[in-house]
Amino acid sequence: MLNSEASRASERVAPGVFGDRIIDLARQLGQHSELPDALMCTYFSTVHKVVAAQLRDWMQSAGLIATIDAVGNVVGRYPGTPGTTKSLLVGSHYDTVANAGLYDGRLGILTGLVVAEYLNRVGLRLPFHLDIVAFSEEEGVRFSAPYLGSGAIAGRFDETALARRDQDNVSLATVLQKEGVDLAAIRALARAPETLRGYLEVHIEQGPVLLERGLPVGIVTSIAGSSRFRVTIEGVAGHAGTVPMPLRRDAAAAAAEIVLAVERRCSTATDLVGTVGQLAVPRGLINVIPGCCELSLDVRSSNDTTREAAIADIRAEIEQIAKRRGVSATVTELSRHGATPCAKSMQSAFARAIARAGVAPFYLPSGAGHDGEMFAGSTDIGMLFVRCGNGGISHSPLESITAEDADLAARILHDVLVNLD
Amino acid sequence: MLNSEASRASERVAPGVFGDRIIDLARQLGQHSELPDALMCTYFSTVHKVVAAQLRDWMQSAGLIATIDAVGNVVGRYPGTPGTTKSLLVGSHYDTVANAGLYDGRLGILTGLVVAEYLNRVGLRLPFHLDIVAFSEEEGVRFSAPYLGSGAIAGRFDETALARRDQDNVSLATVLQKEGVDLAAIRALARAPETLRGYLEVHIEQGPVLLERGLPVGIVTSIAGSSRFRVTIEGVAGHAGTVPMPLRRDAAAAAAEIVLAVERRCSTATDLVGTVGQLAVPRGLINVIPGCCELSLDVRSSNDTTREAAIADIRAEIEQIAKRRGVSATVTELSRHGATPCAKSMQSAFARAIARAGVAPFYLPSGAGHDGEMFAGSTDIGMLFVRCGNGGISHSPLESITAEDADLAARILHDVLVNLD
Repeated sequence: MLNSEASRASERVAPGVFGDRIIDLARQLGQHSELPDALMCTYFSTVHKVVAAQLRDWMQSAGLIATIDAVGNVVGRYPGTPGTTKSLLVGSHYDTVANAGLYDGRLGILTGLVVAEYLNRVGLRLPFHLDIVAFSEEEGVRFSAPYLGSGAIAGRFDETALARRDQDNVSLATVLQKEGVDLAAIRALARAPETLRGYLEVHIEQGPVLLERGLPVGIVTSIAGSSRFRVTIEGVAGHAGTVPMPLRRDAAAAAAEIVLAVERRCSTATDLVGTVGQLAVPRGLINVIPGCCELSLDVRSSNDTTREAAIADIRAEIEQIAKRRGVSATVTELSRHGATPCAKSMQSAFARAIARAGVAPFYLPSGAGHDGEMFAGSTDIGMLFVRCGNGGISHSPLESITAEDADLAARILHDVLVNLD
Repeated sequence: MLNSEASRASERVAPGVFGDRIIDLARQLGQHSELPDALMCTYFSTVHKVVAAQLRDWMQSAGLIATIDAVGNVVGRYPGTPGTTKSLLVGSHYDTVANAGLYDGRLGILTGLVVAEYLNRVGLRLPFHLDIVAFSEEEGVRFSAPYLGSGAIAGRFDETALARRDQDNVSLATVLQKEGVDLAAIRALARAPETLRGYLEVHIEQGPVLLERGLPVGIVTSIAGSSRFRVTIEGVAGHAGTVPMPLRRDAAAAAAEIVLAVERRCSTATDLVGTVGQLAVPRGLINVIPGCCELSLDVRSSNDTTREAAIADIRAEIEQIAKRRGVSATVTELSRHGATPCAKSMQSAFARAIARAGVAPFYLPSGAGHDGEMFAGSTDIGMLFVRCGNGGISHSPLESITAEDADLAARILHDVLVNLD
């Protein structure tokens, strides 16, 4: 044990080896975009294929056995010690939202890439294949169907998504057909659980928690469950000058109460957020009392009970508000999925490596969804968040990380990999 | 005096003479529309000209001396007793909003028309010219410039409106030029105050007050003053899953508080209304905390002090809400005009005629603007509101009145006219 600990300590990488290179690679990838002056890379666009080829080339130069699979994932294997049968996946996604930042998804790919490159350079073999995976589709932008890449490898590809159409009315099925991909090829990508050692993902936090606490990294405890709704309020339109206040049935005023009720209820637990991201009086006029108001609702928690309780309360309050105001409120559930806990073993592995790097281990849930959700049923998953600059802004060109934080994240990933049995 | 009272009483018209005819004429006018299955008649459209010609023809058949003037007003004169120099104007507008009702504006024209027709038939001359005026433009739909018709006759034509453009980018100046109308012709329409005996307008209430009270008509005390604003809230956009509630600066939540503050403050006085008719998170997404929210604000009162005090309080509250939430709020005043009182003499004249018809006189302010505002500086104005069916809905095909109420309004107008010195 002491011997082994000493050997592991010596395997730690000096600061500065990885950081600048990760930032440089992210910037290079960010130069390929569907938009002239903002980053966008959506599933199976021309730009998307250029990025995939670039990642494959980089992986090959790093000494990995790299290929682009049927659904567009780039997979680069750094083979384990002889006789190895299991793979540890380290990955994240290379597709982006519109007007994206450089690091969402890509940080996790590039962190894995530079660490594998380093392991290959120093010639250290691991007791498992290290598969660096650049997932082709996570954001769900083109077909409103997220996790197409990780879903395929996890054996959870959403086949109902094949019928979905992009904004040019082209179905996913048609796109795959043009690529020469059939359902059998997609199903063949599925990794059997017994072949997996685990799944690790480094990701930019996309929020301000680490920044506020002055911490470079954090250990993800769980990926939040989420429920989404559309709420439509129907009141009675009227002339803004002629209907006395007590006789109004104003749909926007009811919606305003709902917005504040969501905010209030979701502030009662630390592990709970609720957002009204869309709010509109359709065809509203300055001199007409709103007869209709529409809003969206997104509620998340890493604790399913917490989330469901909040939703029940919000639904009840919407009903009360509508009744009191004499308007109707229609609440339509758009989606619902439970929380995905990260494996305790992976959380501990990250914690030990973070401590060895001289940083205080800190745990936080992930409010955003991530590719790891796909693998939670098959293997142990672990996630490391990296501090997000500029107040924690993400899905924006203002998204930022420092080279120092990227470097630390890669060193921690390296430490975890070399210390994993 | 007794003799005169007796003669006046005998001049009252039996119920039923006017009502069905007014409804029938309104329905006939409503058949001319710019839309295939809804009513719309905007300034100087082809339909607008057809309606003007129809009104002129009806006025001529009724025995009036009728013409269409430079800005499209249809003016029909029933000449007064010999030596008469002054005119009493009875009018309202024939243009409409999109998807309009049959009676907004047109009820006032047709009520005047049938009464003038009756006077001509029975041969009763009045001590003033009775000018029935169908104003060409009141709603401000095409050029966002209301009162183009009444403004011209009142000598208050808004010449800055000439540069305004419709949605096809055609300016009002161009439209008038094509009609062969120059500024001199518009200015020549102005009636000198000393030539006016007064201005009377019958109008559908466009609200539920008379309906709620079970009254067929009401006397307008004042046309409300109004202030309009645009409010833009700038917060900080963020990922709906990753920003804890206490760290958010949600623009929509701030807007929601403002909507409720407006509602609350404007419910503190009976003669005050406040409306947020437009409310939107621009390009809002279900999973993004709103970084921006825009809303409109319309505040009205027949008492200027009441209105100004409410606006001051609302502005202060917006500032407090923004400060507390760490967002910015920009409040831009779009328009402001004071209340226009109706002349006491005209209110009394209506009250006496209403009482003689066996109805309890009831007084109410007008929250909507009306053509009479243009004449308030020149002569005594008076307005009579007629009960609006269907809950008081207006600017909608659901707008309705009964033939009985229209009949009563016309009989009251007749009574007022024959009893005015």
